[in-house]
Amino acid sequence: VTGVVALDWGTSSLRAARLDADGRPLEEHHAPQGILQVPAGGFPAVFRETLARWSLPAGTLCLASGMVGSRQGWLEAPYCPCPAGLPDLARQVAWVPDVPGGLRLAIVPGLSTADGDVPDVMRGEEVQVFGALALLGRDAGLFVLPGTHSKWARVEAGRITGFATYMTGEVYGLLRRHSILARTLPAEDGPLDEAAFLRGVTDAARGPLLHTAFGARTLSLFDRLPADALPSYLSGLVIGEELNAQPLRDAGRVVVIGAAALTQRYRLALQARGVQADTLGDAATWRGLAAIARLLETSA
Amino acid sequence: VTGVVALDWGTSSLRAARLDADGRPLEEHHAPQGILQVPAGGFPAVFRETLARWSLPAGTLCLASGMVGSRQGWLEAPYCPCPAGLPDLARQVAWVPDVPGGLRLAIVPGLSTADGDVPDVMRGEEVQVFGALALLGRDAGLFVLPGTHSKWARVEAGRITGFATYMTGEVYGLLRRHSILARTLPAEDGPLDEAAFLRGVTDAARGPLLHTAFGARTLSLFDRLPADALPSYLSGLVIGEELNAQPLRDAGRVVVIGAAALTQRYRLALQARGVQADTLGDAATWRGLAAIARLLETSA
Repeated sequence: VTGVVALDWGTSSLRAARLDADGRPLEEHHAPQGILQVPAGGFPAVFRETLARWSLPAGTLCLASGMVGSRQGWLEAPYCPCPAGLPDLARQVAWVPDVPGGLRLAIVPGLSTADGDVPDVMRGEEVQVFGALALLGRDAGLFVLPGTHSKWARVEAGRITGFATYMTGEVYGLLRRHSILARTLPAEDGPLDEAAFLRGVTDAARGPLLHTAFGARTLSLFDRLPADALPSYLSGLVIGEELNAQPLRDAGRVVVIGAAALTQRYRLALQARGVQADTLGDAATWRGLAAIARLLETSA
Repeated sequence: VTGVVALDWGTSSLRAARLDADGRPLEEHHAPQGILQVPAGGFPAVFRETLARWSLPAGTLCLASGMVGSRQGWLEAPYCPCPAGLPDLARQVAWVPDVPGGLRLAIVPGLSTADGDVPDVMRGEEVQVFGALALLGRDAGLFVLPGTHSKWARVEAGRITGFATYMTGEVYGLLRRHSILARTLPAEDGPLDEAAFLRGVTDAARGPLLHTAFGARTLSLFDRLPADALPSYLSGLVIGEELNAQPLRDAGRVVVIGAAALTQRYRLALQARGVQADTLGDAATWRGLAAIARLLETSA
């Protein structure tokens, strides 16, 4: 597969890459043009401007994942139900009609699952999981994609069998900026205070976050923790709460996929729980989209 | 004890009552003059204006509880450590000097406790617990005071032996108004949808709130729950999370103290967990302050 273009088009940003045959980026372009920033009907124009820099020949295959395939995106690519493997995603891509520049563009569907009668969804993270499997040469395991809404996914025999969303990053931001804790915490987070962070991970075992978060206030009130350490402590509480819900005992090595600053925190927190972690960044996205492109080209 | 005046002076409101000998209010006055609304040095003036309506004789005993005794209040009444009974509170009141109108004013201390090395605090709720004990003729049990920061207190042999704070009301408001859920929920809460609320209480068992709250979004996305039912569902999730952390199995009847709209929700949620509840409102505050006043007068 040469000349494939991959787009990771999320809520708040757009990242595009021209990939080599192994799914490695030859050139990349990042812009704050997430789907919330694109005006109604504006997707073709943003797409054309983004890719114009690469003078792509007509017929080039472009593959996009993320919220661009949601109801609020360019074209809805309905969720693919779990369990799902890479071939399931490839079979259910949504082909965009009338793509600018004579290019071909397919949007990868997200995944849906259900815990009892409550559904859960992801868009974009499924591609990263499959990319990580390829990069690590694995076909099973527990994967976490931390962020505003963290996703924990289970993979068996090359298929995602289920997953769950945790509003970890968002709740951290709400507590940190908008709750009573905002009066105690410093204006900026500053660098990670590893000891305070790990204390938070440990203290997350004391009870639900509803309770433990109040401890960030009282520890400060009683001068037990300096204000500068409170953001790291609160981050440890929130991430620790997320870890409490995972079957870590039987997980083996956990794979953490995301930006370095965040995967580092999860690696530390997992280590504190006796679990080793492999971390991956953007490479997982590009490799996953390249693998789907290969399936599309060979089945075409 | 005749002619005692009780003040419940919290963060956002001031409630004052002239009490009869049994701690029942003869006259009440409510104002949005919580300690956050009182300008620096303004406590004596607000106190004088509030009580002027009752033409109290000099020497009248006034007793105040709540955040008025915090570092940000009129006069700091240091926390009394648990376990603590009513006599401990009475012994440690802070007498305010130079009270306007020749009145006597004592501020009731809050309580502190520790779970391991993380402290917890309350101010005002301890008075309500002791008032409830008197009103119900009990000397032990599990008490909950729901609100922005819910307090769960254990009482044994007439003393509060420990308690814990849950940021339940505040986190509900943050999720409801400021998280991604705000896009899905209607602008106003509307009346309680009991079925949706109880479904939330049940679904709280699925995992931590970080996860279950995202279900409010997906249930709507998949048209499984109408938007109007989502605030009640989310309220059930948050209150259910609070209940998950309590030793309800051994609690017997739980006492819920607070405003009727909130105690009704807790009573419903507790019933769904097989626990019966007694509910009390303002009467607990007045009765608790009257009991402390009696101890002050008899020991004086």
